[in-house]
Amino acid sequence: MSNSTTSQPSHNQLDTKAQAWSALFSEPMSDLVKRYTSSVFFDKRLWQADIMGSLAHAEMLSAQGIISSEDHASIQKGMAQITAEIEAGGFEWKLDLEDVHLNIEARLTQLVGDAGKRLHTGRSRNDQVATDVRLWLRGEIDVISGLLGELQKSLVETAERYVEVILPGFTHLQVAQPVSFGHHLLAYVEMFHRDAERMADVRRRVNVLPLGSAALAGTTYPLDRERVARALGMEGVCQNSLDAVSDRDFAIEFSAAAALCMVHISRFSEELILWMSQNFGFIKIADRFTTGSSIMPQKKNPDVPELARGKTGRVVGHLMGLITLMKGQPLAYNKDNQEDKEPLFDTVDTLKDTLRIFSEMVGGQLNPATGVKEGGISVNAEAMERAALKGYATATDLADYLVKKGLPFRDAHETVAHAVKAAIAQGVDLSELPLATLQGFHPQIEQDVFECLSLRGSLNARNTLGGTAPAQVRAQLARHQARLA
Amino acid sequence: MSNSTTSQPSHNQLDTKAQAWSALFSEPMSDLVKRYTSSVFFDKRLWQADIMGSLAHAEMLSAQGIISSEDHASIQKGMAQITAEIEAGGFEWKLDLEDVHLNIEARLTQLVGDAGKRLHTGRSRNDQVATDVRLWLRGEIDVISGLLGELQKSLVETAERYVEVILPGFTHLQVAQPVSFGHHLLAYVEMFHRDAERMADVRRRVNVLPLGSAALAGTTYPLDRERVARALGMEGVCQNSLDAVSDRDFAIEFSAAAALCMVHISRFSEELILWMSQNFGFIKIADRFTTGSSIMPQKKNPDVPELARGKTGRVVGHLMGLITLMKGQPLAYNKDNQEDKEPLFDTVDTLKDTLRIFSEMVGGQLNPATGVKEGGISVNAEAMERAALKGYATATDLADYLVKKGLPFRDAHETVAHAVKAAIAQGVDLSELPLATLQGFHPQIEQDVFECLSLRGSLNARNTLGGTAPAQVRAQLARHQARLA
Amino acid sequence: MSNSTTSQPSHNQLDTKAQAWSALFSEPMSDLVKRYTSSVFFDKRLWQADIMGSLAHAEMLSAQGIISSEDHASIQKGMAQITAEIEAGGFEWKLDLEDVHLNIEARLTQLVGDAGKRLHTGRSRNDQVATDVRLWLRGEIDVISGLLGELQKSLVETAERYVEVILPGFTHLQVAQPVSFGHHLLAYVEMFHRDAERMADVRRRVNVLPLGSAALAGTTYPLDRERVARALGMEGVCQNSLDAVSDRDFAIEFSAAAALCMVHISRFSEELILWMSQNFGFIKIADRFTTGSSIMPQKKNPDVPELARGKTGRVVGHLMGLITLMKGQPLAYNKDNQEDKEPLFDTVDTLKDTLRIFSEMVGGQLNPATGVKEGGISVNAEAMERAALKGYATATDLADYLVKKGLPFRDAHETVAHAVKAAIAQGVDLSELPLATLQGFHPQIEQDVFECLSLRGSLNARNTLGGTAPAQVRAQLARHQARLA
Amino acid sequence: MSNSTTSQPSHNQLDTKAQAWSALFSEPMSDLVKRYTSSVFFDKRLWQADIMGSLAHAEMLSAQGIISSEDHASIQKGMAQITAEIEAGGFEWKLDLEDVHLNIEARLTQLVGDAGKRLHTGRSRNDQVATDVRLWLRGEIDVISGLLGELQKSLVETAERYVEVILPGFTHLQVAQPVSFGHHLLAYVEMFHRDAERMADVRRRVNVLPLGSAALAGTTYPLDRERVARALGMEGVCQNSLDAVSDRDFAIEFSAAAALCMVHISRFSEELILWMSQNFGFIKIADRFTTGSSIMPQKKNPDVPELARGKTGRVVGHLMGLITLMKGQPLAYNKDNQEDKEPLFDTVDTLKDTLRIFSEMVGGQLNPATGVKEGGISVNAEAMERAALKGYATATDLADYLVKKGLPFRDAHETVAHAVKAAIAQGVDLSELPLATLQGFHPQIEQDVFECLSLRGSLNARNTLGGTAPAQVRAQLARHQARLA
Repeated sequence: MSNSTTSQPSHNQLDTKAQAWSALFSEPMSDLVKRYTSSVFFDKRLWQADIMGSLAHAEMLSAQGIISSEDHASIQKGMAQITAEIEAGGFEWKLDLEDVHLNIEARLTQLVGDAGKRLHTGRSRNDQVATDVRLWLRGEIDVISGLLGELQKSLVETAERYVEVILPGFTHLQVAQPVSFGHHLLAYVEMFHRDAERMADVRRRVNVLPLGSAALAGTTYPLDRERVARALGMEGVCQNSLDAVSDRDFAIEFSAAAALCMVHISRFSEELILWMSQNFGFIKIADRFTTGSSIMPQKKNPDVPELARGKTGRVVGHLMGLITLMKGQPLAYNKDNQEDKEPLFDTVDTLKDTLRIFSEMVGGQLNPATGVKEGGISVNAEAMERAALKGYATATDLADYLVKKGLPFRDAHETVAHAVKAAIAQGVDLSELPLATLQGFHPQIEQDVFECLSLRGSLNARNTLGGTAPAQVRAQLARHQARLA
Repeated sequence: MSNSTTSQPSHNQLDTKAQAWSALFSEPMSDLVKRYTSSVFFDKRLWQADIMGSLAHAEMLSAQGIISSEDHASIQKGMAQITAEIEAGGFEWKLDLEDVHLNIEARLTQLVGDAGKRLHTGRSRNDQVATDVRLWLRGEIDVISGLLGELQKSLVETAERYVEVILPGFTHLQVAQPVSFGHHLLAYVEMFHRDAERMADVRRRVNVLPLGSAALAGTTYPLDRERVARALGMEGVCQNSLDAVSDRDFAIEFSAAAALCMVHISRFSEELILWMSQNFGFIKIADRFTTGSSIMPQKKNPDVPELARGKTGRVVGHLMGLITLMKGQPLAYNKDNQEDKEPLFDTVDTLKDTLRIFSEMVGGQLNPATGVKEGGISVNAEAMERAALKGYATATDLADYLVKKGLPFRDAHETVAHAVKAAIAQGVDLSELPLATLQGFHPQIEQDVFECLSLRGSLNARNTLGGTAPAQVRAQLARHQARLA
Repeated sequence: MSNSTTSQPSHNQLDTKAQAWSALFSEPMSDLVKRYTSSVFFDKRLWQADIMGSLAHAEMLSAQGIISSEDHASIQKGMAQITAEIEAGGFEWKLDLEDVHLNIEARLTQLVGDAGKRLHTGRSRNDQVATDVRLWLRGEIDVISGLLGELQKSLVETAERYVEVILPGFTHLQVAQPVSFGHHLLAYVEMFHRDAERMADVRRRVNVLPLGSAALAGTTYPLDRERVARALGMEGVCQNSLDAVSDRDFAIEFSAAAALCMVHISRFSEELILWMSQNFGFIKIADRFTTGSSIMPQKKNPDVPELARGKTGRVVGHLMGLITLMKGQPLAYNKDNQEDKEPLFDTVDTLKDTLRIFSEMVGGQLNPATGVKEGGISVNAEAMERAALKGYATATDLADYLVKKGLPFRDAHETVAHAVKAAIAQGVDLSELPLATLQGFHPQIEQDVFECLSLRGSLNARNTLGGTAPAQVRAQLARHQARLA
Repeated sequence: MSNSTTSQPSHNQLDTKAQAWSALFSEPMSDLVKRYTSSVFFDKRLWQADIMGSLAHAEMLSAQGIISSEDHASIQKGMAQITAEIEAGGFEWKLDLEDVHLNIEARLTQLVGDAGKRLHTGRSRNDQVATDVRLWLRGEIDVISGLLGELQKSLVETAERYVEVILPGFTHLQVAQPVSFGHHLLAYVEMFHRDAERMADVRRRVNVLPLGSAALAGTTYPLDRERVARALGMEGVCQNSLDAVSDRDFAIEFSAAAALCMVHISRFSEELILWMSQNFGFIKIADRFTTGSSIMPQKKNPDVPELARGKTGRVVGHLMGLITLMKGQPLAYNKDNQEDKEPLFDTVDTLKDTLRIFSEMVGGQLNPATGVKEGGISVNAEAMERAALKGYATATDLADYLVKKGLPFRDAHETVAHAVKAAIAQGVDLSELPLATLQGFHPQIEQDVFECLSLRGSLNARNTLGGTAPAQVRAQLARHQARLA
């Protein structure tokens, strides 16, 4: 079945796209239609994956005796040159050749003749593009996982610095209970850790090989698809050719994981923006993440968190776009699927940029001179603590105090509500009420109540797994540091 | 209050962006942050609107005596030169200057000195960008409205050709009743007409002037905002400065109208794809809207309708992205809003390309030699009619026949169901059952029943307003032709 | 063509649904399938519209001589009894009869025999359901428009009370410039006014009659569709039968308008929640719109604004669901369309409840004893003003002051930035810097600068159309009051 | 720390909700506000999870000595009675008590006095509701996973029956290559298998315990949270209290998995609807999954697939709603989160009903008399095969034939295009062209070409992993059967 490479290529059908298709077409595309249907100007970013996939395919074709080893060598040589041309910026991408696949194959045939024409044996663009996107996305997921790790480290390092700093913990944006600022930051570590877990789950389903499914039904050549999968580091082979070419689950699943990650970014951004507002004044971020105003000379605006919050919309929109795209499509491949790429590319770019910039904005940048990170979030601990004193944040502690004296929780809760009402009327904190006044609400209140009414006493008391007591926060820090090492 | 233009400009604060802001910033932006926050590489497409708005603003500043007429003349001269530079491709867009507004203003100041620095009097980037986007979108809506008209004309012309061609009308994709193919096409005219109406409604709310609201609170200069609105052809002035700079309703409302238009395109595409499938074989579209296969030599795929159906996802995604963007934003301007542009731009581009291509795909292209349009949809009337005979499409006519004989509709409906069951059992159409057999189902059936059982008899009988009878379809055609003339 | 009503009804095919369809079906539905496909438990809320539409249809059938006047009278009598039964709660809704239409028609036939069976002449459920939903939605739009008016009035009344109260106007949630609290509230009046305009636009496209389009192709009976439209107060007749039964634009367009209105609600809620947070302390809402905590006795949480912000998601989700529903559907009616109702119903309910509750929460409730509204938002003007002093909110005024002395705006902007930097370093406001210090930044600064550096001076100075100066705010109040009267 | 249970309960603060909160509230809620903010009418479906969680919590409180064993016993007894009351339908759900949690706790306190009041020690509604939803969703995921298995089995059983039936495989809805109908069905098995994998991934992140995080900061009681997790069969404990109460990732992640599953359902439905259309006529589904028409007596409509396709919109909408809900929320718990439940509940209900109904619609129902499944999809093999002959489905096979003779693939592809063009011109299939004619296109074509030009020859030739050759399909069937056993 193996064929020798003819040294002189016959004419190259790929020189124009219509010829690549067939002799059936009676008229060329208009420029508008070409632009509307071609993808090369965005899918050329898949070129490395495309060449990697083609090389693995060619190696297998040769090993199976479907093409000659001379053809295989020619393909390798041609692809090496194409790689060099693209890296050097000298490769000419042609709109007429519609997509990255035909552009590279056409150039290959120019370079190595019939060997190039034999490369497409046993495959189709339908399985080829699915393979390329999966290979590319796998690489991007690895980058994103790395960036999620970096961001977690940044948060952990910052949290470590502020374990003892007290922030008003909010529910409903009302002061609720004092929490450690370090503890608060670690809540985001949990979120980004889950994002990384989801990315790992997605990766398993991305990293499966469609190649060899051909157009939709498999191929008549004796391919060894598992050999190709191994060569490409893939964990398995798509088991059904129709599914292999039409499946875009991996794109939707990745986008859903990315959208959720951006939702976390939007929540964190919302808090950073609040904390930087003058009425909070809890933190500052470095000037290089802010911008000024063209009209108000005093402004320093938290542009990066705001934009990141806004970019959540973009990523969520792409998820919705992809779902709309796939809804109701019959099997197998339809041209609609070409629309999977731009949202996917933009999602990846947005997520990577955002994670990278947040790592640095939170944790700062390494100063090579000192070996120390500089320029991360700076904290006004005094402002945080002052705010925590505003909302009767230790009222629950008083209730718990009474429970420990024997009251059922519901009775204690009601008693404390009366005490808070009195304190509000006097414009003072609970801890500023005299003991006698407190005893008026319940006789079992004694001098030791004032310890539990202090912010720090309240903080230290929440000393169970997952709680905000510094001892617990330090245990979590140790766990994360070990995990992220 | 008017000032003379100093002939020698002092230093230009816009030469770098940080200086544009203020002296408050202690460090420059990193390249990553610059790229993340700047918009010039996509918002430069607003340059014409930006200059148009600035010229109207400058004219009013001069008329109000806020700047001198010499300054006004300098600004006009500078803007003329900038226009020429941009049109000639010689304008240097700088990432450092963040957006289209600062790029143009900085160049203006380079060219005309202090007059350029006076242009920003009484405005801010917040009201400037809102004005630019509205001016630009107004123009694009006009283009889109024109294209919607073109597409309607294309459909009307095609419908006119096929008034008498019979198609099986489907409900639930089951053959229901015979319909005129012209009538079917006119259903899409109704949809695109509603789209045009919606665009007109959106335009009224787009075409209102924010300029003069400054950053958020209005300005201390005695502006005449209504003069600016008149100069720009706007229908009114935003009446509340906070709303003016933070409102993005117009972007969301436009995107919703665009998404609905794309939903219509997706429905039409679905039908074109079905009709071209071999099992239907109802129509062909010109080769230039189709592509072939890299592996299957016989294929001619309806790429354009498929892609258009897929692009619905993209536009729907942008709508969802914009809504997510605005959800929960406090007043007034937040940087999140910069994210309104890319989805809006891509929505406009996608919609315009799609409408343009569909007009030509449906109705063909004018052959200048013959003065006749060529290359539109071609119809296989015989295949359509054959398909209409498959599903007992005239069963309702038999029921109506019996009602006219005095049966209540529900009884007639049941009687006919029995007749259909018998015809199915014999593998024939209702019209192929002998009169005697039909009379077995109801004695009042007579010879004249066969007229109503024919496709054409059924078609002609639906002769009330909005019905499929050719007489009605012609009346609708006349109405549309008059409307679109 | 007219028939006499037989006094004794023959058997009622609607007694079970399968019989309503035809004799073609060989097995009954399972209970699961019945539940999955039937809609009566949610579409029964359309009963009034269904009866209204049927009565107008019957009147026309009679006027056209398609049914006898006796039949018409019977139908009227039957419908009157059904109305009474439903209103009294005695009507038995049957799952077996699938939807509101068959339930009512079956009961009608029970009551009046063959006249009931004649009602369905010249119509189908496809055009009937489209008519019912349009009639119902038209009514709900009128309610919503009324509620939007109420909410605007509430905001206007509240704004009137607080024209002179100074709030820090934010951009990027950073203090920007002082604004009137009344002015701030009027920004929302603009938004809800646009919502009302959009509802009016939607109403025009809702208020068109599909009835008489029958299943998809029109009907063989000599209907007078315009007579029915007039009887139902509709503005026109759907001009294409295929479009009439398959169009759901009006549902999507309404949902888009509703989603945008909820986005406004989400923005207002976000601000209410911020303003109630202890670090702001700007406002209170009445206790009946808040809830407490099961554990923290001191809490008073702004539940209503939070829930409303959350319910934005619900309405946006319904919009997305409806768009997904329609994407790619071929003509004409498909069963998918039954899924239009629940999202539409829930959107209407959510929007009405939210608008009603916000009107009262903002403006309070009329105390019938005093004739005065009580319990609206209460304002802590002192806290607002104190916050406005925190962020150098009058820096722009200083720049404008210098421009009026002859400096180009950009130079003035830079000069002020240096002054702000000095003030920050000293921990004081610009207005607290001695004149001599200010003159160090620019020699033309004189004693009168302090007027423009005060919050109130700044506020009063923004006295152009749409600006925050109290004079402007009062002009807007007058405009809104006239408009809403 | 342990307390004895007082036998006589003091007054029950939960008798009305305001008392549950505190003494701070000066006015009761209006009915509208109650209805707007309460959740009991939808969250009561969590009652089993709520009681399960409370019992595990109480057991731990007792084991840790925080409550007495008498109190523990009372709580167990009370909960047993409440369970009985709810199951018997006698439990009175009160709107005034807002949610399922307060309703059950109030009843418990009625029944067992102070022991009931002690149950809430060390927890809050914030961690309680998060725990309840997770427990409930875990159970539903298990049900859904089971249903996904059932549906896969149904598809596998049906596929097994039709391995040798030839269907035209489509790309772009154009006939591409012949495929086995069994192979086609197995493509959906791959999809639903991935759905099941995703559900398993989600389950791991759902099955983690928030309880013991209290309102937001942890608790002052010495809880053993890991004991509770073990008792509830959970795989771990939420490690950060702030994250624990505010995290809704699991709801979004589940909804995304559900939406993707519904996208698969929509694709399958689209195909079922196509295949049932008269122009295909490939399959029938049992009458009980179809409905008729109120006007067209001949109709049998595929209602179930259509509705399922439509319900995709509903589930996608819920995903969008949940994402919108969480976007930009600051930590920790906000009332917005109450809006997570209805979309989640409806998603679960829709998915379960749809999967159940599809299993039966595809594979039929077990006839207990015969032990055989009956009433699944029935196939018209002849119509499928006839359709496969329409579109030159074996053209690729001819190209492959030529490649095996030594031609490069691209040359072979072009040669075949010319042959197809000739066949189209003559109105015959490739296999109907005389050998001589074929040889005119390439001299190496010989008599054996006709084998590869037959549908069955083509099918059998695609005999590599994942291909459509019956041998491959049988291998896949065996793999699935083993996996699903």
